[in-house]
Amino acid sequence: MSVTELFEHPKIDDEPDLQLTPSGRLRHLLTLRGLDRQHLTALLDRAETFLSPRGERAVRSKALEGRTVANLFFEPSTRTRASFDLAAKRLGADVLNLDVNTSSRKKGEGILDMMYTLQAMQIDVFVVRDASAGVPAYIARHVDTYVSILNAGESDVSHPTQGLLDLLTIRQHKRDFQDLVVTIVGDIAHSRVARSAVQGLTTMGTGEIRLVSPVALAPDPGEMPSARIMHRLDDGVRGADVVMALRIQRERIGNLDGIPGIDEYFANYGISHERMKLAAPDAIVMHPGPMNRGIEIESSLADSRRSVIRKQVTNGLAVRMAILSAVTDSLEADAAARKGGSPAR
Amino acid sequence: MSVTELFEHPKIDDEPDLQLTPSGRLRHLLTLRGLDRQHLTALLDRAETFLSPRGERAVRSKALEGRTVANLFFEPSTRTRASFDLAAKRLGADVLNLDVNTSSRKKGEGILDMMYTLQAMQIDVFVVRDASAGVPAYIARHVDTYVSILNAGESDVSHPTQGLLDLLTIRQHKRDFQDLVVTIVGDIAHSRVARSAVQGLTTMGTGEIRLVSPVALAPDPGEMPSARIMHRLDDGVRGADVVMALRIQRERIGNLDGIPGIDEYFANYGISHERMKLAAPDAIVMHPGPMNRGIEIESSLADSRRSVIRKQVTNGLAVRMAILSAVTDSLEADAAARKGGSPAR
Amino acid sequence: MSVTELFEHPKIDDEPDLQLTPSGRLRHLLTLRGLDRQHLTALLDRAETFLSPRGERAVRSKALEGRTVANLFFEPSTRTRASFDLAAKRLGADVLNLDVNTSSRKKGEGILDMMYTLQAMQIDVFVVRDASAGVPAYIARHVDTYVSILNAGESDVSHPTQGLLDLLTIRQHKRDFQDLVVTIVGDIAHSRVARSAVQGLTTMGTGEIRLVSPVALAPDPGEMPSARIMHRLDDGVRGADVVMALRIQRERIGNLDGIPGIDEYFANYGISHERMKLAAPDAIVMHPGPMNRGIEIESSLADSRRSVIRKQVTNGLAVRMAILSAVTDSLEADAAARKGGSPAR
Repeated sequence: MSVTELFEHPKIDDEPDLQLTPSGRLRHLLTLRGLDRQHLTALLDRAETFLSPRGERAVRSKALEGRTVANLFFEPSTRTRASFDLAAKRLGADVLNLDVNTSSRKKGEGILDMMYTLQAMQIDVFVVRDASAGVPAYIARHVDTYVSILNAGESDVSHPTQGLLDLLTIRQHKRDFQDLVVTIVGDIAHSRVARSAVQGLTTMGTGEIRLVSPVALAPDPGEMPSARIMHRLDDGVRGADVVMALRIQRERIGNLDGIPGIDEYFANYGISHERMKLAAPDAIVMHPGPMNRGIEIESSLADSRRSVIRKQVTNGLAVRMAILSAVTDSLEADAAARKGGSPAR
Repeated sequence: MSVTELFEHPKIDDEPDLQLTPSGRLRHLLTLRGLDRQHLTALLDRAETFLSPRGERAVRSKALEGRTVANLFFEPSTRTRASFDLAAKRLGADVLNLDVNTSSRKKGEGILDMMYTLQAMQIDVFVVRDASAGVPAYIARHVDTYVSILNAGESDVSHPTQGLLDLLTIRQHKRDFQDLVVTIVGDIAHSRVARSAVQGLTTMGTGEIRLVSPVALAPDPGEMPSARIMHRLDDGVRGADVVMALRIQRERIGNLDGIPGIDEYFANYGISHERMKLAAPDAIVMHPGPMNRGIEIESSLADSRRSVIRKQVTNGLAVRMAILSAVTDSLEADAAARKGGSPAR
Repeated sequence: MSVTELFEHPKIDDEPDLQLTPSGRLRHLLTLRGLDRQHLTALLDRAETFLSPRGERAVRSKALEGRTVANLFFEPSTRTRASFDLAAKRLGADVLNLDVNTSSRKKGEGILDMMYTLQAMQIDVFVVRDASAGVPAYIARHVDTYVSILNAGESDVSHPTQGLLDLLTIRQHKRDFQDLVVTIVGDIAHSRVARSAVQGLTTMGTGEIRLVSPVALAPDPGEMPSARIMHRLDDGVRGADVVMALRIQRERIGNLDGIPGIDEYFANYGISHERMKLAAPDAIVMHPGPMNRGIEIESSLADSRRSVIRKQVTNGLAVRMAILSAVTDSLEADAAARKGGSPAR
């Protein structure tokens, strides 16, 4: 039984509104749903300001000086946590890293009390990763108005900073979204990465979004109406401008119809040099990491010129700096409005 | 066998002297015993300077810039460690967080060698939490004169920063301590929180201190002569200005006479709205956290206007900033005195 | 099967070249082999600038401001990690601490992908500890030119910062290396500490290096031609200016010929006051820590005037600050050269 079932079922449709102030500023980042193209573009533009040429020093600022960011990871993570940790530090924030074993959080009550406690320590931004659906929104619904919640990965549901870094990476390499064919391959059903990517790509007006997976790993029909669900990789890759492989949990492979093992999975759903010949000549290859080389992607393809996988990581840090600075800008505008007596813009 | 038994039994009565310099400055914080009302008041006053209005930015200073604080937690902790971590960072210190599994510390010898090693890295302040009685004082007795030891929770014995934050919270809500009735309820026998609170309240001249618990969880008669030991909660709460519930370990409940389960514990020793009708009309409710809602406190009472529980957390951070700045002030005065050839004031 | 066997066997003889830029600057620190006396002396001199008198504040600088240092420990460590952590913080760097369970790193491929990911986050210096031989050099061979790798302990093979701190400590207490007799005692066969010490001492032209151990723990004959292998401690200590005891894993003791237990080990290979009477009158005693008191060293000797064990810890931090600032100086010179179009000096 999940946290949210214990308390109140999250009204999923609240989330988009929940994350914006009445005047449309970004207060929390819970999902890419509800953020329009202007919002997304502004965030991507902001992220670009945090990128420096390869080999040069990382961009830094003092935008979060005097602010405290707490990384609250209820699910293990190395990459995303390191990325948020460095993003906050490079903006001058104090950072509190809390790796909390979920087993020690037996009751839903526990997480709220933990949040209230940390909030009472005047933490400004909480970065939350949780294996249960609805937790970031549930927390956002309860914290004080001067606290921001950032979703760093939520069950199978949402991973909005990953979605943003994927958009940024595509925008850097391709022209207009409306001319693009973007293909996402693998375990769509269990992928928060795919869900956030589809949301972002849809908002940006992407020409065609294809989701390729074994039947058992396809999303529910109707869940993502803007995307085409496919099962043959050749069809999915043909003419694609962007091919994104998803990580698959190895233990899932054995249970797939007609896919008794890793070799068969790779043969049917692995992205390879050979397969990429079907794609557009300048197609790029993406992966959210960590990769299972030789399972969802041919190892040498991941290191080839087509691959933008490491660029995604660099963009991830810039996106997280952008989000952190955007929400603290909102906090500041709110505080100024409260002080001035005028409503927050 | 505890660390201290292996080596030398801590002379408990040394501790109060151990923590003050010859001129009466605070060098270590090991216990509230031995700190007089003037000391406590000065620390509370100092803590007030680290509070900012709710919703405003946390207070920061550079008082510990160039200093290093090591958090040495031999017992797991989220709240207290986060509080000390942020307190040190907001004062500009470098912070080293070491969560040391006690099982890896097999011999008492180990802890001293670890301290000597860390001390040789020019760490200025050690924040120590340990499950064995006497460890903070034992360490304090051995470190160099330019190092401070802060007790962040010691077995059932002492939790002096908790005691201070409780005093600060009471002082903010009530007039003079001498007019107050303060009631502490629950597992007194095993509570370092209760012990430090009683010490602090006694020094501040609190009018009446009541300790309410099942017989099996009462302190040894004579241990706390300034407090009244009681067993009926109604009697304890009647007319009280402050009611502090303690956390109880659930596994203890089954062994209590006449209290077969949680419901019976709550019925007999849980603080509820109903019960609070017996207290003074403006009585406040406290809890050191983390709470077992519905066991030692009625859940809605914890979130009510009477509750100052979250305020305690905010005060805890301010108290820790105060302690950190007080002991480093002492270190500086000592260093100046050593340089100037005159004795430390 | 080790990481390196999975991929390519590290060409051990590459390492010394690998760690210097074409113009002879220190880019990585992988081993003390290949660093000549001028290099070592420059590093020791640099380390001296990071020492302050006992009881005074730690030396700090802004040499690494804007830089990021990642501590990547695949083997548990408290002391060395704390030392690198504080070294980086006192130089103003942002620090990312990653304790990675080796068991989660099943394939050699994993470590490189992890490095590429972290490198893409614009981390400047990686401090790496690993239980497998060849890992630091393997990583160094693959990272970008603007990244430095520092070896913080590599299997039985190498521990170069320990070697440097041992040299620094000896240099502070003794005159010329060429007049010295240095004796290292204990489990030589499994000791990265001994190997790095012998390399450094050899380069500095140490008069005589003696390695004393039970036969079963002696190094392969021919591995360290500059040292004399001995098995009787009295012979080894006689006339020595420096006696360094090594830590022994207790479980190894039972398997040693003629040494059934701890008492016999101490009797035969423990450094004691009694034994030190054979050494030079002003001989010093060293130990890399953590000590097994009463096994490899008499407890009171470790705390005596002869002991420089705590000084080693202090020097260790200074050496790590020196290395961090040396490699970032190299990175900066390289970057300047790339910008200016002239080759790096």
